[in-house]
Amino acid sequence: MNFLYEPGFDPGAPVLGEKELQHLKVLRVQPDEKICITDGRGHLHTSKIIKWEKNRPIIQVEQTVFVDRKKPELHLAVGILQSSERMEWMVEKCTELGVHTISFMITHRCERTKINLSRLESSAVSAMKQSRQAWLPDITGHVKFEDILKTTTASKFIACTEKRNMDHLLNKLNAGHNSLILVGPEGDFTTDELEAAQKNGFGSVGLGGNVLRAETAAISVAHLFQIRQLSNGVSI
Amino acid sequence: MNFLYEPGFDPGAPVLGEKELQHLKVLRVQPDEKICITDGRGHLHTSKIIKWEKNRPIIQVEQTVFVDRKKPELHLAVGILQSSERMEWMVEKCTELGVHTISFMITHRCERTKINLSRLESSAVSAMKQSRQAWLPDITGHVKFEDILKTTTASKFIACTEKRNMDHLLNKLNAGHNSLILVGPEGDFTTDELEAAQKNGFGSVGLGGNVLRAETAAISVAHLFQIRQLSNGVSI
Repeated sequence: MNFLYEPGFDPGAPVLGEKELQHLKVLRVQPDEKICITDGRGHLHTSKIIKWEKNRPIIQVEQTVFVDRKKPELHLAVGILQSSERMEWMVEKCTELGVHTISFMITHRCERTKINLSRLESSAVSAMKQSRQAWLPDITGHVKFEDILKTTTASKFIACTEKRNMDHLLNKLNAGHNSLILVGPEGDFTTDELEAAQKNGFGSVGLGGNVLRAETAAISVAHLFQIRQLSNGVSI
Repeated sequence: MNFLYEPGFDPGAPVLGEKELQHLKVLRVQPDEKICITDGRGHLHTSKIIKWEKNRPIIQVEQTVFVDRKKPELHLAVGILQSSERMEWMVEKCTELGVHTISFMITHRCERTKINLSRLESSAVSAMKQSRQAWLPDITGHVKFEDILKTTTASKFIACTEKRNMDHLLNKLNAGHNSLILVGPEGDFTTDELEAAQKNGFGSVGLGGNVLRAETAAISVAHLFQIRQLSNGVSI
């Protein structure tokens, strides 16, 4: 069954926007074929193409299911990376792993401060469709490091990818806690940034002995958060 | 300090091949500057450029350190994917995470059966240099699924990315055991392949509730293997 994304989709007036309409045409979906439409906000509408009329499909929604958003929530804030491609890849993988919010921060060592948010959102959409999820992560861009520090949430950590022998994130995470975890850009955070985070209640954590690229560190964080929810009491 | 890769580098006759020589020129490394040269087989040669002579550097090796290869060994065998880019990315991440051997298998659902091994090796080289490791993973391509099944190693698993409610890999892995873990291509393994693997002593395992792309599954496996070595006795 083909999986489509239509933000704001209304099952009472089931119409697709131009993008998914084109997609449906490319897929050559025939009358009577089933499709699944999500709005990226928890709804999965199993639908049928009744017929094509004037090059547009007449859609009938047969069943609507609401999927609760995954709890607890992980908010991952990552320094803006040099490579757009690596950020897009990171968004794709974090979407697959069910990250709730992804923020791109401007930190001292960021080599660039501008990102193309709509391309990153496209990566999230395609990953959501690929992994047949009902929720799209929230993505925010160009967030100042100082502003992220003011965020209120149950657990807050800053990952130090360059330092070894730190407490491992998995030991510090609490199952069931919403968490905000910061990952630096290439070259990591500065000492000043680390200190500012600590002053604002962020625990410093490591991710194990390997030197990881920033985007690999981000996906490790998302994976560790998922493992912690599955396995309370695990320690390293 | 710049990090170079020179296979078969001999500290007694320290000469660089054309590739790293060009790299050194681009980097404009000056006399007296230090560089680190690895052969990808455990040796790290901290060296100095004495001078440039006829457009070639005269290198003096000051210190050689041998780094043991990480134990236990993870052999990750993945179905050949449709996209070369996704395979290159996977090799990069698995190198960062210290995977010992990466094999690309031909399985029933592989959409292609040819890979460009030298491009995959380049991805591994650049990841090894980036994360300043002394070992390059062994990469083998075009391995038949039937042949992989005959491999002898301490622990053998087959990851079923499409099936939920399977025993989680982390519960099955034993710390300290060399392991061979199979990950299917897009569309996963066939039932026949799963059965053949089970008959050959492979345990079937899952990777959690999310639907993961094949290359994300592969990196999850590498990450879980690393976590298991750090945390014996952990279960999900």
